[in-house]
Amino acid sequence: MPHIQITWIEGRTTEQKRTLVTKLTDLMVQEASAKPESVTIAFVDVPAESYASNGMLVADKRKQK
Amino acid sequence: MPHIQITWIEGRTTEQKRTLVTKLTDLMVQEASAKPESVTIAFVDVPAESYASNGMLVADKRKQK
Amino acid sequence: MPHIQITWIEGRTTEQKRTLVTKLTDLMVQEASAKPESVTIAFVDVPAESYASNGMLVADKRKQK
Amino acid sequence: MPHIQITWIEGRTTEQKRTLVTKLTDLMVQEASAKPESVTIAFVDVPAESYASNGMLVADKRKQK
Amino acid sequence: MPHIQITWIEGRTTEQKRTLVTKLTDLMVQEASAKPESVTIAFVDVPAESYASNGMLVADKRKQK
Amino acid sequence: MPHIQITWIEGRTTEQKRTLVTKLTDLMVQEASAKPESVTIAFVDVPAESYASNGMLVADKRKQK
Repeated sequence: MPHIQITWIEGRTTEQKRTLVTKLTDLMVQEASAKPESVTIAFVDVPAESYASNGMLVADKRKQK
Repeated sequence: MPHIQITWIEGRTTEQKRTLVTKLTDLMVQEASAKPESVTIAFVDVPAESYASNGMLVADKRKQK
Repeated sequence: MPHIQITWIEGRTTEQKRTLVTKLTDLMVQEASAKPESVTIAFVDVPAESYASNGMLVADKRKQK
Repeated sequence: MPHIQITWIEGRTTEQKRTLVTKLTDLMVQEASAKPESVTIAFVDVPAESYASNGMLVADKRKQK
Repeated sequence: MPHIQITWIEGRTTEQKRTLVTKLTDLMVQEASAKPESVTIAFVDVPAESYASNGMLVADKRKQK
Repeated sequence: MPHIQITWIEGRTTEQKRTLVTKLTDLMVQEASAKPESVTIAFVDVPAESYASNGMLVADKRKQK
């Protein structure tokens, strides 16, 4: 029954998502007594211009580096 | 007042979304006493590599078929 | 694969939710070629003081009536 | 058309939410050319035990102070 | 600690998002006693065919004008 | 920058959430090159009457057992 919605900056590979999905599902089974078939996961990719923290777009933080 | 956010695999047509929006709004009016003008609906399309259930990406499940 | 998250004002009964879940799932199967077992639905109930449209809390709109 | 979903720690007053709703809606109208009647806002209150950053629950951070 | 997720029709510029992020963060600090570094904001852009209110897609409303 | 929103059935303990937050954050750092301080996590607890899959409320599935 957990639905896990991950909103993050675009760019992670399918391989990273594949690994995360396996490990996230295992984590929910081990730590939250979920059944694996009930764990749904969605990755919502957004550009760096569409995510912000501390009053600044991630895209602008990256330019400062 | 309901906001309905539907996260699903990309690929549904505008026609499918149009039909769903009409029927979803009717459903909220009939079954949940909502006013039609207060029902907002957003479809968040994600690729098959960004959605998973039962520890596996939908993209990988499709390859297995 | 659709996850449907409905954020709305608290107060709908379990019976209303039961009916909506049946009809929403049917709708996704008929109109969006989803498999019923892949349709997950979550109702996020919030008080009328925590939902707003057109610049006004629903709780305040109700007081105006 | 913007739906703004704010997930935060419970405890803000209705008066704070009232003020935020007015100012958020004005902001969307002024900066994002939205129509006020199309701006919907939902506050999802969660306890401090249900929110975390930097690997720690907010509830535990508060105990450390 | 507030996470603000704004789902809206695609098309707003980075400059609009930059201004909104600054003002939204200030608003959370002033009105909701949040720390700026704890305010995270994500813009989820969707096409006009993927957003609806009052039973109609925004894309169809725009055609009516 | 990932915001992880987990919508699930209420009842998990603070201890379970504490463990999950630590392991989820580590996972994002190891597998998705996230900085720990940028990982935010929110658990949205809903009653079993407010979550459904395969056309049935979790509360009703539990009664069938």
